[in-house]
Amino acid sequence: MAIENLKDLFVHTLQDIYYAEGKIVKSLPKMAKAADSAELRKAFEKHLTETKEQVKRLDAVFKSIGEKAKATKCPAIEGILEEAEELMGEIKDKDTKDAAMIAAAQAVEHYEITRYGTLVSWSEMLGFEDATALLEETLEEEKATDVALTELAEDKLNKEAA
Amino acid sequence: MAIENLKDLFVHTLQDIYYAEGKIVKSLPKMAKAADSAELRKAFEKHLTETKEQVKRLDAVFKSIGEKAKATKCPAIEGILEEAEELMGEIKDKDTKDAAMIAAAQAVEHYEITRYGTLVSWSEMLGFEDATALLEETLEEEKATDVALTELAEDKLNKEAA
Repeated sequence: MAIENLKDLFVHTLQDIYYAEGKIVKSLPKMAKAADSAELRKAFEKHLTETKEQVKRLDAVFKSIGEKAKATKCPAIEGILEEAEELMGEIKDKDTKDAAMIAAAQAVEHYEITRYGTLVSWSEMLGFEDATALLEETLEEEKATDVALTELAEDKLNKEAA
Repeated sequence: MAIENLKDLFVHTLQDIYYAEGKIVKSLPKMAKAADSAELRKAFEKHLTETKEQVKRLDAVFKSIGEKAKATKCPAIEGILEEAEELMGEIKDKDTKDAAMIAAAQAVEHYEITRYGTLVSWSEMLGFEDATALLEETLEEEKATDVALTELAEDKLNKEAA
């Protein structure tokens, strides 16, 4: 698809995050399985449920602007998840592995926060009210997940790993 | 390098962000050259100067913990920059290209914010006082750059692109 204006760029970026969310849905069960800490496993499972809802919300965003839901390969999320999976495979010590996974999950969250932040801003400027509300809902969820992961990391996992 | 404990993970992540900063130093001049808006070009040039200082600060962090400064390939930043460069090459309309580049720069900032946030937290737990102070300084700079980019995007570029 040629990108000629902000609307095209908005749709392209929606397709990018749609691809990313699909990858995250596949990655989270592996991360939950690899987690040693029960709290971390639960955090990943909770985020999996949320992510599936976020995919549905993206379907609704596409529909609200009269576009077909479609994914475009997103090299950024590929790179972030590749790094996470490499570390998961390499680290033997359980607490260190949990610390690495939580950091990887935060990198994923920050990627989503930046993309949804941009999408909300563009959606507002393009006058897509329904899309803006849906995207804002996901943005707030992602921010809350990042805060929860930070608390989990600081309170528990890193202390165990140190 | 085998990662057996939090110290090893900390050093590995330092090497990861050292690689990322090196890539960003190479990428920013291309982004500045491609920017149509004078303000955006200046923002990229300012961040290039900052990034070069951040690399020196990382040299000091490695030194402070008795490790040699070294880069480890970081697939995450490769993916984020690949996506940015693809868009820069594809988009002809100047305002739309500026909007895409600012979003790409924010994705880079968020990657750095999450990594430096993690590094500060681990550095504190490991008792590396000098390293913690240096990493915190960079973290605050990255956050300020993200805020500046958001303001630039919202006040100016996106309105022009819409």
